[in-house]
Amino acid sequence: MPTSPKSAQLAAPLLQRFEHVRAQSLAFAAPLSDADATAQSMPDASPAKWHLAHTTWFWETFLLGPLAPGYDLFDDRFGYLFNSYYDAVGDRHPRPQRGLLTRPDLDTVKAYRAHVDAAMATLLTDGIDADTASLIELGLAHEEQHQELLLTDILHLFSQNMLQPAYKAPEPLAAADAEHGASVWCAVNGGIIEIGAAADGFAFDCERPRHKTYLEPFQLAHRSVTNRDWAEFIADGGYETSSLWLSDGWATAQAEHWSAPLYWFQRDDEWWSMTLRGPQPVDLDAPVCHVSFYEADAFASWAQARLPSEAEWEYAAHSMTDSTGAFVDGGRLRPARQSEANGTAFAGLFGDVWEWTATPFRPYPGFVAPAGAVGEYNGKFMSGQYVLKGGSCASPMGHVRASYRNFFHPDKRWQFSGLRLARDA
Amino acid sequence: MPTSPKSAQLAAPLLQRFEHVRAQSLAFAAPLSDADATAQSMPDASPAKWHLAHTTWFWETFLLGPLAPGYDLFDDRFGYLFNSYYDAVGDRHPRPQRGLLTRPDLDTVKAYRAHVDAAMATLLTDGIDADTASLIELGLAHEEQHQELLLTDILHLFSQNMLQPAYKAPEPLAAADAEHGASVWCAVNGGIIEIGAAADGFAFDCERPRHKTYLEPFQLAHRSVTNRDWAEFIADGGYETSSLWLSDGWATAQAEHWSAPLYWFQRDDEWWSMTLRGPQPVDLDAPVCHVSFYEADAFASWAQARLPSEAEWEYAAHSMTDSTGAFVDGGRLRPARQSEANGTAFAGLFGDVWEWTATPFRPYPGFVAPAGAVGEYNGKFMSGQYVLKGGSCASPMGHVRASYRNFFHPDKRWQFSGLRLARDA
Amino acid sequence: MPTSPKSAQLAAPLLQRFEHVRAQSLAFAAPLSDADATAQSMPDASPAKWHLAHTTWFWETFLLGPLAPGYDLFDDRFGYLFNSYYDAVGDRHPRPQRGLLTRPDLDTVKAYRAHVDAAMATLLTDGIDADTASLIELGLAHEEQHQELLLTDILHLFSQNMLQPAYKAPEPLAAADAEHGASVWCAVNGGIIEIGAAADGFAFDCERPRHKTYLEPFQLAHRSVTNRDWAEFIADGGYETSSLWLSDGWATAQAEHWSAPLYWFQRDDEWWSMTLRGPQPVDLDAPVCHVSFYEADAFASWAQARLPSEAEWEYAAHSMTDSTGAFVDGGRLRPARQSEANGTAFAGLFGDVWEWTATPFRPYPGFVAPAGAVGEYNGKFMSGQYVLKGGSCASPMGHVRASYRNFFHPDKRWQFSGLRLARDA
Amino acid sequence: MPTSPKSAQLAAPLLQRFEHVRAQSLAFAAPLSDADATAQSMPDASPAKWHLAHTTWFWETFLLGPLAPGYDLFDDRFGYLFNSYYDAVGDRHPRPQRGLLTRPDLDTVKAYRAHVDAAMATLLTDGIDADTASLIELGLAHEEQHQELLLTDILHLFSQNMLQPAYKAPEPLAAADAEHGASVWCAVNGGIIEIGAAADGFAFDCERPRHKTYLEPFQLAHRSVTNRDWAEFIADGGYETSSLWLSDGWATAQAEHWSAPLYWFQRDDEWWSMTLRGPQPVDLDAPVCHVSFYEADAFASWAQARLPSEAEWEYAAHSMTDSTGAFVDGGRLRPARQSEANGTAFAGLFGDVWEWTATPFRPYPGFVAPAGAVGEYNGKFMSGQYVLKGGSCASPMGHVRASYRNFFHPDKRWQFSGLRLARDA
Repeated sequence: MPTSPKSAQLAAPLLQRFEHVRAQSLAFAAPLSDADATAQSMPDASPAKWHLAHTTWFWETFLLGPLAPGYDLFDDRFGYLFNSYYDAVGDRHPRPQRGLLTRPDLDTVKAYRAHVDAAMATLLTDGIDADTASLIELGLAHEEQHQELLLTDILHLFSQNMLQPAYKAPEPLAAADAEHGASVWCAVNGGIIEIGAAADGFAFDCERPRHKTYLEPFQLAHRSVTNRDWAEFIADGGYETSSLWLSDGWATAQAEHWSAPLYWFQRDDEWWSMTLRGPQPVDLDAPVCHVSFYEADAFASWAQARLPSEAEWEYAAHSMTDSTGAFVDGGRLRPARQSEANGTAFAGLFGDVWEWTATPFRPYPGFVAPAGAVGEYNGKFMSGQYVLKGGSCASPMGHVRASYRNFFHPDKRWQFSGLRLARDA
Repeated sequence: MPTSPKSAQLAAPLLQRFEHVRAQSLAFAAPLSDADATAQSMPDASPAKWHLAHTTWFWETFLLGPLAPGYDLFDDRFGYLFNSYYDAVGDRHPRPQRGLLTRPDLDTVKAYRAHVDAAMATLLTDGIDADTASLIELGLAHEEQHQELLLTDILHLFSQNMLQPAYKAPEPLAAADAEHGASVWCAVNGGIIEIGAAADGFAFDCERPRHKTYLEPFQLAHRSVTNRDWAEFIADGGYETSSLWLSDGWATAQAEHWSAPLYWFQRDDEWWSMTLRGPQPVDLDAPVCHVSFYEADAFASWAQARLPSEAEWEYAAHSMTDSTGAFVDGGRLRPARQSEANGTAFAGLFGDVWEWTATPFRPYPGFVAPAGAVGEYNGKFMSGQYVLKGGSCASPMGHVRASYRNFFHPDKRWQFSGLRLARDA
Repeated sequence: MPTSPKSAQLAAPLLQRFEHVRAQSLAFAAPLSDADATAQSMPDASPAKWHLAHTTWFWETFLLGPLAPGYDLFDDRFGYLFNSYYDAVGDRHPRPQRGLLTRPDLDTVKAYRAHVDAAMATLLTDGIDADTASLIELGLAHEEQHQELLLTDILHLFSQNMLQPAYKAPEPLAAADAEHGASVWCAVNGGIIEIGAAADGFAFDCERPRHKTYLEPFQLAHRSVTNRDWAEFIADGGYETSSLWLSDGWATAQAEHWSAPLYWFQRDDEWWSMTLRGPQPVDLDAPVCHVSFYEADAFASWAQARLPSEAEWEYAAHSMTDSTGAFVDGGRLRPARQSEANGTAFAGLFGDVWEWTATPFRPYPGFVAPAGAVGEYNGKFMSGQYVLKGGSCASPMGHVRASYRNFFHPDKRWQFSGLRLARDA
Repeated sequence: MPTSPKSAQLAAPLLQRFEHVRAQSLAFAAPLSDADATAQSMPDASPAKWHLAHTTWFWETFLLGPLAPGYDLFDDRFGYLFNSYYDAVGDRHPRPQRGLLTRPDLDTVKAYRAHVDAAMATLLTDGIDADTASLIELGLAHEEQHQELLLTDILHLFSQNMLQPAYKAPEPLAAADAEHGASVWCAVNGGIIEIGAAADGFAFDCERPRHKTYLEPFQLAHRSVTNRDWAEFIADGGYETSSLWLSDGWATAQAEHWSAPLYWFQRDDEWWSMTLRGPQPVDLDAPVCHVSFYEADAFASWAQARLPSEAEWEYAAHSMTDSTGAFVDGGRLRPARQSEANGTAFAGLFGDVWEWTATPFRPYPGFVAPAGAVGEYNGKFMSGQYVLKGGSCASPMGHVRASYRNFFHPDKRWQFSGLRLARDA
């Protein structure tokens, strides 16, 4: 195989982004003690320290190992400890026991990060070829995914503690410019459309290939479902009415005694919620968050509507994105507003909550997983999960694009997940 | 609501079919002792006696109760015992404990059937309206589904017994006219096509509405995967190669120690299989059967192909069906052969094995579940399962149509389930 | 090893008893259908058919196989199907799946019994030596144990069916001559006493060796705890008061939602119970039955008393037995009454309910398990269980002796188990 | 109730001991990071931080709350977080989730300890009555129990980490003066003996009342079973021979894949063990440690011996103790040697490993649990566990006395538990 030429031009902006993303991960962990960063609150979640180390292992394993001659592993046992699920790379520490890794401690993990960062800087300074640049793009996107997971996992951990500690966000999140009014249906034309990421530019493998699909005309709500809407659903007996629910959803709701979104509780007859800023009264005008697919689906039944398919959602979002598919928005994490999509306006498609779609996470027509271990990145998870679109308040901006396919099992609630209603035209 | 007119013309052919289907259910149970008909081998399966009683309860609950004035319940406790999953109808005996119902005994269940049959004959003789006719069509289709389940469940029960008893089929199944040759790829054009059942004629709710969808050109194997193919997959380490498998599939295969299709075992270095006729040597030229979706998907990866989508499968099958969508074939359960589909020839699309598709069982665009308890028939199961198409050697002919959507969870193996390969054009 | 002489004198009475016990087992199964006899209601219980076959396997395996030259196995696969727990004898069908053995059917099992009975009759007619006589005694006692288990297991099975069928006992059990009055404390002197079976005569291995132990003076209630007593315990919140319970008992009671003895339910504000004769009103003057050790212990705490130790119980029962340790009583299953034990009178020590003692089932000082597979009879279960004494209404008379050690885990409730209170002098 | 007189004389030595024990707990935690002290490796174990806080809660709840007027709770939520199992005191944090309590952090727990220590010093300086002195004795013994548990739990935590970190003991444990020779049987006479703690002096409630029991003559090994002995058991197939094992033990050993003591592993064909000092080669002459009751029982069967009863063990140990029942020995944790017990000599009865006995942990004749919440200390656990005697290298000296009754379930292996053989005379 002919080696593609190395380029310093490719490397320079990537190094800058690399440094930014890596610093960002540390910033997310800054409010945490060693113990906070070590504990694992459930098998679905991972310790913050593990996120910091696993993302570092990714660089070491997929970039430095193969591409940096003479690179010294920081600790040859870390491959076992911090591999997540790559069978091709070897055995690994059992996932449900990640919280037992009190060693290496947080300082050692930070030293591990510094060691790998230095080697990556050298690699990038030496110049890289196009394939390596793609791998680095993947590593950056991977690390950004884990930044959001770090936050969802810490929130879950703190919610298990009756002290309800507050995670001190490095910068307070701007209050959303809430949509007070009723939900408005926006009509979207159907026909043969295209979804999926274009061939150039970074996207995860599962976003490709861009392909045609057929849509009937449909309607999409101009805003996502709010906490006020959800409180009505609860008050109307939504959690006690089996006919609204999928069979598996009802069984789960009964077994786990669901009666409200994950972090909601009642204090003095008002709804409160555990948040990253500690317990807070529920803002009734904000999008509902921390609901499962099963709950979202039951809510939609109750509202005599349905969830949008992934294709409907993505098609509606198209005119809010530029020619490369990236979300056009100036400020970080500010919800999009008043953009025009096929003559209709949508609010908060990006950056408030991940929105559950009705679409199981399956390969796109023509999908082929990449060769080698990184081929395990998404492909092997394409069963039993549902697609979420848009991005949440905790999503790095680099993840906000119409073709992005987030996915979780239908019973999961600890992500920043909400919904937007659709219906047939 | 104005009552639609009663018609004896509608009723006469239905009564004939009713009597035929009811007699067929009893014929399927004829080789079974009371104990055989009572045992439940796993929560997924039901006792034969339960199938006989539950299908009878369906007529009693949805037809006789609402529509036959003065009908006397055979036993008012049977509603609790033989309701399957209709929440709207009331509480029910726990599914995993159906095998504990040694009473009522088989003779009492047969008396229950006779009681209901007589009342149904009276109802039909009196004439019925069109809505009732539709409900009866549903009841017949429902009972035919349970006939196939009765067979799959008995096979599973007998397979758990080291005596490996033979179920004595009322008429020996004709040996399939096996396809000895290599699999041939048949090209199918894409475009906007239609799938789903037409608006008139009987179909389950989930087969509707007929709707447009878009397909890229693709290729479909002219025959399903054979036991010979599968033996090669085994010999090539298919069950030990994690990279071929979906993550959930691999976890299941490891936990349940899968190393061959469900009923295969080795005797004197040859593959045998437990069947309804007792243990038999595996016929290498017959379609592989009793594999899960996970196994089917792994096999397809190994064969550098994929499973067809439901739409691809159904579209390919269209030219083998008549204008009503029903399968055009003379003899019962004889596999279709040499028909032309878009200029290509497919073998065994119907009547050999159910073929797993790549498509999760989800509602069609525009799907609305019927009002009332029968609305629970399919809709609430539209999550977590995959569509199978075609029909097996155990499927009643009334079920063999292109739009039929069978569905099971991806780890299930005890149905007569196999696969056919597809690939991109 | 010199062979001990064969004796026809030894054999004749054993043959008579053998025929009686074997006939009795069939009589217990007579009211059952094939399906009743096949179902298994929980892993702790076994199907009636299995009891009939397993006891037959015992004779075949431990008597006929080694001792009857030329004996032909009825079916060489039955060893796998009907071995209970003898590791030394080989692999076996998994216990929790005994209910799946619809074949062999009940008639075949009866033919199996007849085959073995005929061979045993020949063996006994030919005369036997003393060691063989001992093994036959063990086989008879073993079969009698299973007769009681057959009844407890059928009751449990029928209790799981909302039809609450009645097992038609071959002869109605005589109503107990109930003790209406208050419980009276009877004083018993302490000192060095002896418990355990004497060296001669039949007893299970675990009843030996007879040995000295030391008792402080104590008091024992003259009757067992009644349903009336238990209803007071319930009414006083016994099932809701954690301080009365052992920690494991409380956890079990909460997890399994215990609020009354196993088969009790309320109808029109009165206590009813499922019994072998179907649902019956609770007889408040009869001994409470179907309570676990945990419940018995909590009741004793509530009554400011305690359970007797095994030694206390057995010592108190001594004067009610003859010199061989056998219970002196004329009629079958009639509760003992008004006998004198150390100057005190006890009622119902034998033949009403098994009485939980405070004593874990552990080997007696000097206990040695017999060599060979029969050494697995009791010894390997001597951990985690508690001793029950006396015998129930369902116990064959041959089992009613002071030294008998019945044993079950402390959470088990489906046996005919009650209690009698004790306290320090 | 008349108040008993307060005494400064009673208080002074207790204050000194209090300060010593409290300082000792902190010393045990000194080598641990906040994360080490927070993690919980299994539901049986507790985090070190939890041990530090729970013992402090004990003083606050049972001493300061009732007895120190005006005492201010350090944090009124700690009662919920750090109650272990006292139902009478109120609800509590779920035991299996103690490892999620990253807050309060270790420094806060230390501040909690200081707050309580200061209040306790004031209480003691003011003088206390005899009842309070008894409670303080209990609190000290309680805290010492948790010191040993802290060590066993940390070892288990570190053993789950492939980095196998070493806990840096504050002072290295003296190497035992190992017994190289063969085990010698020492004869002990039987008769009526007494066991249990005398009425005066501190002992846990379960050690009382002192009472008579009867023993046959027996023999006890002069030393405990060594690692060399155990390696022979392994080499001889002890872990693969079901006939040596109790039924529950065999099931556990198979399910958990036991093939050696808990922390043993093989490196270069030699046995190594994870220890508090990290991985170490197994010292073949040291007592075997980290074996369960089930393993100990199977080993004894293999050695054609048995475990001693608690009474046998305690009686044999009597002459090694002074008139108050306390172990007579000069140096901390040094195993006793060459003392005379009924004319025989025993080594290592105290201070090497806890020795499993054959005796289930049940109440002594005449046992009455104290009134109030401290009555839950031992009494409610008197079922399903076995008594261990002697004390381990990790046991505080205050716990080394003949009457001490340690107890664990028969499948537990993470304590410092070994065994000594006995046999009938």
